[in-house]
Amino acid sequence: MSVAPSAVDLCRALVQCPSVTPQDGGSLSVLEAALKQAGFATHRVIFSEPGTPDIDNLYARIGSGAPFLVFAGHTDVVPVGEAAKWRFDPFAAEVAEGAVWGRGVADMKGAVAAFAAAACAFVAQHGTQKGSIGFLITGDEEGPAVNGTAKLLRWAYDRGQRFDHCILGEPTNPQALGDMIKIGRRGSLNGTLVAHGRQGHVGYPARANNPIPHLLRLLNGLIAAPLDQGTAHFEPSNLEIVSVDVGNPAWNVIPAEARARFNIRFNDSWTPETLQAELRAKLEAAGQGADYTLSFEPCNALAFLTEPDSFTDVVAGVVERKTGRKPVLSTSGGTSDARFIRAYCPVVEFGLVGATMHMVDERAAVADIEALTEIYAAILEAYFGY
Amino acid sequence: MSVAPSAVDLCRALVQCPSVTPQDGGSLSVLEAALKQAGFATHRVIFSEPGTPDIDNLYARIGSGAPFLVFAGHTDVVPVGEAAKWRFDPFAAEVAEGAVWGRGVADMKGAVAAFAAAACAFVAQHGTQKGSIGFLITGDEEGPAVNGTAKLLRWAYDRGQRFDHCILGEPTNPQALGDMIKIGRRGSLNGTLVAHGRQGHVGYPARANNPIPHLLRLLNGLIAAPLDQGTAHFEPSNLEIVSVDVGNPAWNVIPAEARARFNIRFNDSWTPETLQAELRAKLEAAGQGADYTLSFEPCNALAFLTEPDSFTDVVAGVVERKTGRKPVLSTSGGTSDARFIRAYCPVVEFGLVGATMHMVDERAAVADIEALTEIYAAILEAYFGY
Repeated sequence: MSVAPSAVDLCRALVQCPSVTPQDGGSLSVLEAALKQAGFATHRVIFSEPGTPDIDNLYARIGSGAPFLVFAGHTDVVPVGEAAKWRFDPFAAEVAEGAVWGRGVADMKGAVAAFAAAACAFVAQHGTQKGSIGFLITGDEEGPAVNGTAKLLRWAYDRGQRFDHCILGEPTNPQALGDMIKIGRRGSLNGTLVAHGRQGHVGYPARANNPIPHLLRLLNGLIAAPLDQGTAHFEPSNLEIVSVDVGNPAWNVIPAEARARFNIRFNDSWTPETLQAELRAKLEAAGQGADYTLSFEPCNALAFLTEPDSFTDVVAGVVERKTGRKPVLSTSGGTSDARFIRAYCPVVEFGLVGATMHMVDERAAVADIEALTEIYAAILEAYFGY
Repeated sequence: MSVAPSAVDLCRALVQCPSVTPQDGGSLSVLEAALKQAGFATHRVIFSEPGTPDIDNLYARIGSGAPFLVFAGHTDVVPVGEAAKWRFDPFAAEVAEGAVWGRGVADMKGAVAAFAAAACAFVAQHGTQKGSIGFLITGDEEGPAVNGTAKLLRWAYDRGQRFDHCILGEPTNPQALGDMIKIGRRGSLNGTLVAHGRQGHVGYPARANNPIPHLLRLLNGLIAAPLDQGTAHFEPSNLEIVSVDVGNPAWNVIPAEARARFNIRFNDSWTPETLQAELRAKLEAAGQGADYTLSFEPCNALAFLTEPDSFTDVVAGVVERKTGRKPVLSTSGGTSDARFIRAYCPVVEFGLVGATMHMVDERAAVADIEALTEIYAAILEAYFGY
């Protein structure tokens, strides 16, 4: 058997691939080479869809029996943002002050590398007599998420792949490794509200109908009261107005139209349909006869929950034993590809510390990458009964 | 003497010049050619100022003696707005259903054409023995109004030009020709309100501070109560929010800043200074600790009044005789370049019907353009004692 790769080395090699969605930057080939060398059968699958970029994906498996534990993740990263503000080149993967610095280290190349290192070492030691280990790795998690995990799951399913459990390596810990395991996610709904008025000259307001005060009143109607108080495993649903735009360059013209866009992170007390009905009722109450249009983007992120059971117990138990922290079982934060995986098998999420994700100077402690590798290794041993 | 141009033909030729501020579109040359042919001495003057576009202006005079009646106007127009909603190309100047259709027909190429036609005909018939007729025409009335009438007045004054009275051809009539003469104007103040927050991911709102709800609350504080109840010659002051802009292209990012722009038309109960203090007090009351910035554009439009006298009697008398309507002497509506002219000579405003100005399908009745030409002609005869 070959020597398993070091998680930190593999992480740095992945970060050095500039894989801002939809670019792959060579990152999947780096990972594929490491897995192949450990004996995994690997498959590269490119998915396409009109209106979105083609995306490269990687599926890998070792072993043929059950149970089948699959690791899911992504090697794409968000843009670097204000490049000049980074202390180090965001794609250099510098090691400094006990951390690896770079875009995607925390979200989530560090966790991909840690699981790959743990799995390669596990296979080298134990072989695959007690089950299978797999990888579902996409390059489309930070982008439209159309040509990524959702299609890769389907692709694998159509080829007879049956997963029993999944670990997704998103950076779930707010402050320190061991803080939090995610066992579900809120749903996400995007909406656009347009208030319609009548254009005119500001000096003659009676001849026009300014849509902006209507929009202000409607938006106040949406945010005045909380959507709910939260549920057993979920925080209260939350609506954020992300943009308001009129685009009127003139000082002396009352515009014809005013537009707002909002995102709702909703808990398991709502479906997209009941939520949309609630929003329509709120607008109806606030509208006072205003002329407006409410529309929604297609919703591909429903709220879901993986009920705590023996699998979550295995993960939580290992995390507590290795970190000395009792992880919170949470459903907070943004969406992730877990929303797709849940339809195929139970999924829990555990990865690095997310404090710097999507920010300038994203980084992860070397010690955390190594500790996460040990945690994943211990989960594999516990899962397969060693 | 040459044949005077037809007002409707000249109007259509002007509308066919796409002169959206600060573009001239050839409009001043069309007018200049007509005036030159009638014997006017013409001058094209381009004014510049850092931070604003250069603007072309036209000054013309015929005769050398007093009294000197000057016509003031502008050939620039506001943008077409929703171009697809126009029944006719806004720069085609189509004649249909008894009207000329197009951007700027009412505000105020129709009146410019009417006065030019009237003046050319008057000069052809009477010569200039009894006084002088002039034109002050700018391309910067709908824009910053920095490189237009204000500078052209100063330019002419510095060259010994002394106006006795001015007629400004803004579309003063709300519904029908003869409704209204303007003898003063409200002031105008432009303000920008920026709410400052902290950018972040919508999934983690506690780590961000969305400026949009703050902006909504602050704007509501500005518009909740009227500024005043009006004065003897003036309507109540009015605040219109003309744009709200965030410009956030993402669905999953809480923006750092939200911005609104507003215009106030204020009466003679306010100065710009007292008005600004009032707005600051309203925001202070509505702010609830929000971080915001309020700023104002330089205010070059104070409220003013031309007290009724023999000159206003001449204009009002002709209007009543020609239209059968007794015009209201009003101070309503938008600002105009009268705010600059008042410092040089008494100014009254009379032009076309403004019902469609700045709107989609702006238009003026052919009969109105012809009647306005007769009114201007009769004013010239009465003014010069024919």
